[in-house]
Amino acid sequence: MNKLYEGKAKILYSTDEPEIFLAHFKDDATAFNALKRGQIQGKGEINCTISSALFRWLESKGILTHFIEQSTSNEMRVKAVKILPLEVVVRNIAAGSLCRETGLAEGKILPFPLVEFYLKNDELQDPLLTKDRILILEIVTPEQLEEMKNLALKINEHLTQFFADCGITLVDFKLEFGVDSQNKILLADEISPDTCRLWDSSETDPLARVMDKDRFRRDLGKIEEAYQQVQQRVLSQLSQLKS
Amino acid sequence: MNKLYEGKAKILYSTDEPEIFLAHFKDDATAFNALKRGQIQGKGEINCTISSALFRWLESKGILTHFIEQSTSNEMRVKAVKILPLEVVVRNIAAGSLCRETGLAEGKILPFPLVEFYLKNDELQDPLLTKDRILILEIVTPEQLEEMKNLALKINEHLTQFFADCGITLVDFKLEFGVDSQNKILLADEISPDTCRLWDSSETDPLARVMDKDRFRRDLGKIEEAYQQVQQRVLSQLSQLKS
Ligand SMILES: Nc1ncnc2c1ncn2[C@@H]1O[C@H](COP(=O)(O)OP(=O)(O)OP(=O)(O)O)[C@@H](O)[C@H]1O
Ligand SMILES: Nc1ncnc2c1ncn2[C@@H]1O[C@H](COP(=O)(O)OP(=O)(O)OP(=O)(O)O)[C@@H](O)[C@H]1O
Ligand SMILES: [Mg+2]
Ligand SMILES: [Mg+2]
Repeated sequence: MNKLYEGKAKILYSTDEPEIFLAHFKDDATAFNALKRGQIQGKGEINCTISSALFRWLESKGILTHFIEQSTSNEMRVKAVKILPLEVVVRNIAAGSLCRETGLAEGKILPFPLVEFYLKNDELQDPLLTKDRILILEIVTPEQLEEMKNLALKINEHLTQFFADCGITLVDFKLEFGVDSQNKILLADEISPDTCRLWDSSETDPLARVMDKDRFRRDLGKIEEAYQQVQQRVLSQLSQLKS
Repeated sequence: MNKLYEGKAKILYSTDEPEIFLAHFKDDATAFNALKRGQIQGKGEINCTISSALFRWLESKGILTHFIEQSTSNEMRVKAVKILPLEVVVRNIAAGSLCRETGLAEGKILPFPLVEFYLKNDELQDPLLTKDRILILEIVTPEQLEEMKNLALKINEHLTQFFADCGITLVDFKLEFGVDSQNKILLADEISPDTCRLWDSSETDPLARVMDKDRFRRDLGKIEEAYQQVQQRVLSQLSQLKS
């Protein structure tokens, strides 16, 4: 097993099979483009478990993902893809940089799900891109861009419903897509409290409701508990769906 | 005459006629959201003269503008409009924030004219907006947005040709539009070396060719000379067209 890439939250390894990678989920947490660093105890296992469960469930809904199997508590076997260097963010409710940049009030329900594209480039600090900027930079083709947007909206519909059934409001989330050897677009990376804003639907207090990495970003405490709570609700919702 | 608004480059006065404002062009120069301040000797007269000439010429091409007449060397009578709070930037060649944000090389000729919208909001530092963000903020209607984009592209075609005939490359420029009492969209504000990037077409040296406010922003010297040079070429091109 060869280490291919060590990121902020995961380590990617090659395997015997050239078309399969192993993603190892770490407890390391970073925020603000890695200016803030820390550890969230048990995060690696939790994020790997939540991601695996959600990828498997999305596959059952007809969404193509890189997910193969959760091989250990914090490791996932995935199809090797070439990651398209765009972070695709879907927003249902205004929060984070959208509010900082536009002055929209945090918590405002958006009139339609907003799909946004950010350049995956740490040096440039992941800038927001317009459609025309994406085409000029030739990051993806117009067809790929359209397909990513449609996939993101479809995934949002599925996940919004799923989390609602868990008593969780899906505020926004970040996706990464990759292309496989046949040039098919697959959902890749992870879906976890690190990459979603999740609010406890029964809580109205704007700090108490936070169940995601914002607890780390904003020093809200009870981080491990929130991540565990998300995992528990996701798993129990899935076992309910099965029975 | 009542002072309605003092901006960084102009003072706007009301007049006896409620539908007419007077724009007084100042020598004051600012850059980087007013962090850098200075004076450019004669700029008020030059920018008023260039703007007046270009507005009159665009009107002759069928573009509706706020321009009525240049009443003194540094004052312009304009139709009062409600300014739409978007800065509309048209880019033919990569420069400035486009390069800083995306990593595109300065001077790269874009495959198509890029029309971009920035929120006119000093506090938020005029953030770049995507189409969806504009619609969610309800700054303009989808129809107004479409019309502004089409107008910007048409104006770009006219100005690119005009400046080319002056031996000047129109790299990019910022427009402001307003709506009049009949809700018609008019081109407003100014078109000048303060609001355009203009490169001397016969110069290849990346510093020597600059004929616009970048000379001030980047401390390149010979600022007044550059502004005068633009004015001279614009006026002589216009008198040539007339004869
Ligand atoms: N199926 C896959 N095939 C190839 N690469 C993948 C796949 N899934 C995820 N990746 C990539 O593996 C890396 C995972 O590491 P991690 O999430 O820690 O990175 P990161 O610190 O967020 O940095 P980056 O900015 O590179 O995403 C990411 O670069 C991600 O894009
Ligand atoms: N025809 C018009 N009717 C009403 N307002 C106008 C018209 N033309 C321009 N304006 C506005 O007048 C002001 C001109 O002042 P100036 O260009 O100095 O402002 P500024 O410092 O750039 O600040 P701002 O961010 O408000 O544009 C601008 O706010 C501009 O939008
Ligand atoms: Mg990552
Ligand atoms: Mg102005």
